[in-house]
Amino acid sequence: MKRWEHFDYDEHDGIATLTFSRPDRLNSLTFEVYADVRDLTDSLRRRRDVKVLVIRGRGRGFCSGGDVDEIIGELLKRGTREVFEFAHMTGACVRNLRELPQPVIAAVNGVAAGAGAVLAAASDIRVLAESASFRFLFTSVGLSGGDMGICWLLPRIIGLGRATEALLLGDKITSHDALAWGLASRVVADDQLDAAVADYVSRLKDMAPWGLAMTKEMVNRAASTDYSSAIEMEAFTQTLLMTAEDFREFHAGFTGKRKPKYLGR
Amino acid sequence: MKRWEHFDYDEHDGIATLTFSRPDRLNSLTFEVYADVRDLTDSLRRRRDVKVLVIRGRGRGFCSGGDVDEIIGELLKRGTREVFEFAHMTGACVRNLRELPQPVIAAVNGVAAGAGAVLAAASDIRVLAESASFRFLFTSVGLSGGDMGICWLLPRIIGLGRATEALLLGDKITSHDALAWGLASRVVADDQLDAAVADYVSRLKDMAPWGLAMTKEMVNRAASTDYSSAIEMEAFTQTLLMTAEDFREFHAGFTGKRKPKYLGR
Amino acid sequence: MKRWEHFDYDEHDGIATLTFSRPDRLNSLTFEVYADVRDLTDSLRRRRDVKVLVIRGRGRGFCSGGDVDEIIGELLKRGTREVFEFAHMTGACVRNLRELPQPVIAAVNGVAAGAGAVLAAASDIRVLAESASFRFLFTSVGLSGGDMGICWLLPRIIGLGRATEALLLGDKITSHDALAWGLASRVVADDQLDAAVADYVSRLKDMAPWGLAMTKEMVNRAASTDYSSAIEMEAFTQTLLMTAEDFREFHAGFTGKRKPKYLGR
Repeated sequence: MKRWEHFDYDEHDGIATLTFSRPDRLNSLTFEVYADVRDLTDSLRRRRDVKVLVIRGRGRGFCSGGDVDEIIGELLKRGTREVFEFAHMTGACVRNLRELPQPVIAAVNGVAAGAGAVLAAASDIRVLAESASFRFLFTSVGLSGGDMGICWLLPRIIGLGRATEALLLGDKITSHDALAWGLASRVVADDQLDAAVADYVSRLKDMAPWGLAMTKEMVNRAASTDYSSAIEMEAFTQTLLMTAEDFREFHAGFTGKRKPKYLGR
Repeated sequence: MKRWEHFDYDEHDGIATLTFSRPDRLNSLTFEVYADVRDLTDSLRRRRDVKVLVIRGRGRGFCSGGDVDEIIGELLKRGTREVFEFAHMTGACVRNLRELPQPVIAAVNGVAAGAGAVLAAASDIRVLAESASFRFLFTSVGLSGGDMGICWLLPRIIGLGRATEALLLGDKITSHDALAWGLASRVVADDQLDAAVADYVSRLKDMAPWGLAMTKEMVNRAASTDYSSAIEMEAFTQTLLMTAEDFREFHAGFTGKRKPKYLGR
Repeated sequence: MKRWEHFDYDEHDGIATLTFSRPDRLNSLTFEVYADVRDLTDSLRRRRDVKVLVIRGRGRGFCSGGDVDEIIGELLKRGTREVFEFAHMTGACVRNLRELPQPVIAAVNGVAAGAGAVLAAASDIRVLAESASFRFLFTSVGLSGGDMGICWLLPRIIGLGRATEALLLGDKITSHDALAWGLASRVVADDQLDAAVADYVSRLKDMAPWGLAMTKEMVNRAASTDYSSAIEMEAFTQTLLMTAEDFREFHAGFTGKRKPKYLGR
């Protein structure tokens, strides 16, 4: 297994965990962290032994986004092409996350700001500690609110009105609002965050992997097609699943009154 | 009027009512029920004398989805092409519902699971008894959460985050959550469900039918086009309505201080 | 500065304010008001000295939509082409609003009905007095609920289920529901509406204008493209902003511990 240098990374029992680990900087991102996130999420795509990816932060917060000194200060010295290469790389991180066949759980405590908020938004399930908050603060640094595809994603999660305001003004979204708006799956006391995440993980890792992967793919593809085509696409893909082994395994388990053991095919 | 054998069907005073009627199986669906739903919803398309369609279930629940024995067990014996024909048929049911010119009201009590939950979601208005719940449980049987176009529809109703979780995990969505998330129009005590549905029906059947039909069509078409084209499409179609008889009838009623009598043209 | 005859219009300190001013008719719209809204919103597009547009109504309500006598009665006398020209003109108003580079704030008290509700919905931020309500009542006058692109916009703000019901039935949406559904940014006591709007205005006018304009444009464009293209589009446009002067100004302000002074370039 490749060693990742710019965040903590752990794998065991089919569960991959990425932990941002610059707690003294509220886990702000550097060029190297972005590059490693991009490469890790790309490599997990082909890892059928990995069932779930969990993303979290060490210390008081999840991730405070691009570092003011190490990213912003540095970008101002670069030329247009190099700046674009950076923007392109950050986009690859969220594209990879959304295209991963495995479910991605963001375990968020404290600050999730800027790119940190976007990475959480691009996860499939967001479990929040009460201390968690989101801030899409790109306009606060003189930039466009549109970064890493968040102008596509956020309106589809919390609605166009709330998203427009959040992206224009960059105000803090509390864990309470996140739950009410559908930006959080669940909010728990800070000391219950690990347990709540473990609960999701243990359920997801025993489910049929191709079924989960296809669910993510259908949600992604249906976002950009018309209803009639989506219906037909789901008829095609569900036929793949209905003629695959795991559907047979479900039925054998059900009729045999035993827990099914899925193989992802 | 064709007799429908696999559910109860009633028409009177312009109101069509489909009642799933296998209460001993929580109104689970068989191949024959699907085929009849597809054919009924197709035939109502041309029935200008029918103003509203109500869908409901007999007994303790709305519809528990495809029957484990009669559908799942049987599908496992079939070849790929036959399985696809089934998936295609189920998709035709929801496509027809969404394309019906008449408003469709789902009156939901108890369980709406799997395909039953999808049929309710594809209705225009969902009136729920407090006992109602939704479960999109396709992944629980080893399949893809994407079935009958629900990966298109559900994110647009309750938001992408909640929908992703509901489709991945298949957890129960209570009537309380359904209301908070916009998946229910109204939640009432179980013994008030009939009255609440009757209230919607009586209002809708007196409204201008072409106006209602065009509203559904514009909502459907606008989902898959850009804003500027949608604006123009509505300018074209509203001009059709503004030069039609029912708009004149509204004005005559308004100035004559009488209730308008709409003709759907 | 052009004088606008059919509503009150004020500009000072970079803030433009349009006030519907037919309070005796609940600010109902006439052909002339629509034409002026279209022309004003078109002209503001090129006004880089204007930072924010506020839309409000004089008296007890925001805007009650097209006047029954002056619009509906008159339309019934016109031919198809002339009716279409009207529908096309109303659509241009909302298209212009959404395409304005400046943030648009609707300050809503009392009734926002029909086209008035659509104009508020097409604004970026909706600040509501408790007395505010929305009614999309097009079907109540025998027309299609699809008018001025609202069948595109409303489902993306409040979800497809709630929007379908609101557009079919035209029921009143209270300020309380508007807040819960994401159709309002904030609800305040009626006598606090001016202060709440002033608060938004004062924050927005000091932010980097190109960043705000690009945020609106990305939200608009991302609504009609796929996720991967949206990510890349934001990488392109964010590179424009990252190589522009205001990003440098942010950093200079941050490191110099002074407030940045943005120039919109």
